[in-house]
Amino acid sequence: MPTCDPVGWIETPFASVGDAPRQGFDAAYRGTLHIDAAYSAAVDGLQAGFLVDVIWYGDQADRTLLRHDDRDVGVFALRTIDRPNPVGVTPCVVTDVGQTTVEVEGVDMVDGTPLLDLKPALTNR
Amino acid sequence: MPTCDPVGWIETPFASVGDAPRQGFDAAYRGTLHIDAAYSAAVDGLQAGFLVDVIWYGDQADRTLLRHDDRDVGVFALRTIDRPNPVGVTPCVVTDVGQTTVEVEGVDMVDGTPLLDLKPALTNR
Repeated sequence: MPTCDPVGWIETPFASVGDAPRQGFDAAYRGTLHIDAAYSAAVDGLQAGFLVDVIWYGDQADRTLLRHDDRDVGVFALRTIDRPNPVGVTPCVVTDVGQTTVEVEGVDMVDGTPLLDLKPALTNR
Repeated sequence: MPTCDPVGWIETPFASVGDAPRQGFDAAYRGTLHIDAAYSAAVDGLQAGFLVDVIWYGDQADRTLLRHDDRDVGVFALRTIDRPNPVGVTPCVVTDVGQTTVEVEGVDMVDGTPLLDLKPALTNR
């Protein structure tokens, strides 16, 4: 069975789900990816200007929601974080890289959100 | 602690990691997302033509790899599935939608890979 242990956490301006924007691209909100020291070697080579997929775990999500009956649509056709596996994928631009921190623009998740992974995004689609 | 229980599995032409393409966009390889019946309601509203992020768990990944010393780069600066949390994000185009199946183009994961999530991809970046 897959296990997803966080590699760090995400600092953002949003104290609650209600404060967070619907998508990070609506405005370039700044946040900080805090990488656990055990994984700092994995940050090598990341540079300002990179577009990355920030992959996170929506620990406040409603995992029981399967569809929005009012809109007649299932959660796999939406980007809402309320879904069976609340894995968020937020494209962000790297603005600075430290030893165990990565500064980014484009965050849309709540302050303190567990960080699962980050990787360069594909832009040729 | 986050738990990521698969919502289904992915059928692809690739029997082993060595057979799989480096990125799905190199060619439009076709695959099938098999959705567990318990989650079939979440598929409502998905349509052919949608670009989706297919989110999967690399259960054959090397989770101990943090950096490639020969290339002097950490895994967070690469899209390799060998990383602490082997969560793959593959943009695919939906070509057909059934009750518990979603046909897609653009797969790059091994046959039988656990499916964690799928959601519309952001294309305005």
